[in-house]
Amino acid sequence: MASIISSQLKKITGSNITLPKGFTAAGINCGIKFKKKDLGIILSEKPASAAAVYTTSKIKAAPLEVTKESIETEGLLQAVIVNSGNANAFTGEQGRMHAYAMCREVSERFGLLDHHVGVASTGIIGETMPIEKILQGIQQLTPAAQVDRAMEFSQSILTTDTKTKNACYSFNIGESEVILAGTAKGSGMIHPNMATMLSFLTTDANISSEHLHLALKKVTDQSFNCITVDGETSTNDMVLILANGLAGHEELSPEHPDWGTFLQALTLTCTELAKSIARDGEGATKLIEVTVEGAATGDEARAAAKSIVGSPLVKSAIFGCDPNWGRIVAVLGYAGVEICPDSIDLSIGNFPVLRQSKIEDFNHDEISDYLTGSEISITVNLHKGNGKGKAWGCDLTYDYVQINSSYTT
Amino acid sequence: MASIISSQLKKITGSNITLPKGFTAAGINCGIKFKKKDLGIILSEKPASAAAVYTTSKIKAAPLEVTKESIETEGLLQAVIVNSGNANAFTGEQGRMHAYAMCREVSERFGLLDHHVGVASTGIIGETMPIEKILQGIQQLTPAAQVDRAMEFSQSILTTDTKTKNACYSFNIGESEVILAGTAKGSGMIHPNMATMLSFLTTDANISSEHLHLALKKVTDQSFNCITVDGETSTNDMVLILANGLAGHEELSPEHPDWGTFLQALTLTCTELAKSIARDGEGATKLIEVTVEGAATGDEARAAAKSIVGSPLVKSAIFGCDPNWGRIVAVLGYAGVEICPDSIDLSIGNFPVLRQSKIEDFNHDEISDYLTGSEISITVNLHKGNGKGKAWGCDLTYDYVQINSSYTT
Repeated sequence: MASIISSQLKKITGSNITLPKGFTAAGINCGIKFKKKDLGIILSEKPASAAAVYTTSKIKAAPLEVTKESIETEGLLQAVIVNSGNANAFTGEQGRMHAYAMCREVSERFGLLDHHVGVASTGIIGETMPIEKILQGIQQLTPAAQVDRAMEFSQSILTTDTKTKNACYSFNIGESEVILAGTAKGSGMIHPNMATMLSFLTTDANISSEHLHLALKKVTDQSFNCITVDGETSTNDMVLILANGLAGHEELSPEHPDWGTFLQALTLTCTELAKSIARDGEGATKLIEVTVEGAATGDEARAAAKSIVGSPLVKSAIFGCDPNWGRIVAVLGYAGVEICPDSIDLSIGNFPVLRQSKIEDFNHDEISDYLTGSEISITVNLHKGNGKGKAWGCDLTYDYVQINSSYTT
Repeated sequence: MASIISSQLKKITGSNITLPKGFTAAGINCGIKFKKKDLGIILSEKPASAAAVYTTSKIKAAPLEVTKESIETEGLLQAVIVNSGNANAFTGEQGRMHAYAMCREVSERFGLLDHHVGVASTGIIGETMPIEKILQGIQQLTPAAQVDRAMEFSQSILTTDTKTKNACYSFNIGESEVILAGTAKGSGMIHPNMATMLSFLTTDANISSEHLHLALKKVTDQSFNCITVDGETSTNDMVLILANGLAGHEELSPEHPDWGTFLQALTLTCTELAKSIARDGEGATKLIEVTVEGAATGDEARAAAKSIVGSPLVKSAIFGCDPNWGRIVAVLGYAGVEICPDSIDLSIGNFPVLRQSKIEDFNHDEISDYLTGSEISITVNLHKGNGKGKAWGCDLTYDYVQINSSYTT
């Protein structure tokens, strides 16, 4: 099923990462977790151009280093192996050996080159990987181009997530129909910084690894990097895209007339996945979207929006349907962006609260009532320039505390 | 009652801000709140050298600007008027007029110069001050040098705090006994940045406003600026110290042989108040002290410590007595300080968890048991240099969410 966004771009519902030509996937339980799926694979019929962005944390998990090495060799990947339940982070030399072993097991099983395999992990930090279970699990994987298998993959990468997260668009490059699909996980420890949580994107577009990286970097800065659940940047954040070229069009580059279409599809896909993560934040009951206009620059607009949506006081107030707008203004004071305290506009939903920093004649109960909804929008105009940006987050609830007070026990 | 810290320095229990010579205080309910005290005054028998540090938020409350103006005129204050229940923040020109009106009412009632009065406010942001009630309240204030009156002042500045916060030390400058006392409030919106929440310090030391500011700046950076409850920097943070010179010693300056004693007394007083604020953080059940050693610099040590104690995941884990040490390490990754991921020591209480990033043979249950206590200490050694620093915070509990989901309603 597809709905048309523009003449060029169609949103595919029932989206899954095996819709682009030549991709298969699978997900199983290999015993890291008790029953839930914990091991998944994405496989391309031929080596695909690959690009990834990683966490900026100084403590990077072993699989990120190994994936980076693989991509740097040729710019190509043909498979990605992913486990949940154990982050393989802060595991030293042994962790690196385990990440290599996972890649090697995949390359042997599917007849690939070692450096054509990427690896990702998510779960508890600092625990040794149950590597035997994982290697045996790899032998059980039977990837196929089926919705069910793709969904099994999406399930296998989840931790405290309550839902799988998928998005998919189709568009034309020249005469060829191209599909771009993505899946993601993330619920807590979400405050991506120049990189993001786990997300895997597949496309049959024909594009070099270099240009793919250019597009991915630009788009993640405005999508995944604009969400926050709890201000915590993870050790395992990674977005990885594979482009196997099977759509058969002339190679994409920034000079190609359809480059803009590709960027737009990538932006829509990443933004949809990013919003799914924010909506499924640990314990969340509401998705909060903050739009900042009139900032000095786009970066400042996004920074201000992310500070508001990251404020525990704003998040708690929205959970309680309390229109405590003074807290939103207080965040602007410390967000590190240029403001003029006497010329701020603020709306909650469609209700104007401040105009040029003067309180509008709003009805407290109407806004409280609006805040009972499941999607809350806040709009700020700083009247400093033309910068505009958005950020997404969720409310802070009792359940966030409950989930995180007993994670390892 | 006094206990001796060093030959020079004694801690006074039953501390109150009227213990230094020449200071009186009072606190009443003037009707901003329903029943609780909401208006207080500190008065000195003669104009006192004054120094203050203020929030670095770009949205500064009106009373801060007015206090700053008063101090800048002569470096002297003789009275400070404080209300709780309304922050007089983001209230524009009318807010400034209300802050001036409070000072004028005090100067007239007590026969002071207008610019010898400081003013502070704390409470809801963005609401118009009920100025008539406050001005009438000022007429009811009858400051005296009594423990009860000092306690009434300490109560009158509270918002969501559950306890008053006081500290007091005596020491000798030359032959004279000098007393330094302080009181503070703060429970939520606590993440002071180069300044702090509301705290008022009185002393009968003889010191110029300039040198008092020098000492205050140095000490707040290592005390109030090292606490966090929720990562939110307030619009109304202020620490104010009054020194009326009535102890009668030769004027203090950095060249005076007892300068170090004065700094030590100020450090002990401010640290004690800062820890009281962290312990009484909104919804908190535990005080958390994080010590970072071996950082590149003292500033980096304090930054790393403050990041750990500010992490919602670490805070939730401690609330749940869950020794999820991987989260502490994850924070070090994004704290913006120099680290070497392979050489980190970590202890929880007296239990070594990591040595040179290798997991020690610790007993999970013993640490869980330790975490049931009301004071938790975490120690990290980064092995990068000689920088050492501490920070204080509290656990994240259901009650934080409860308190903040219905603050204005």
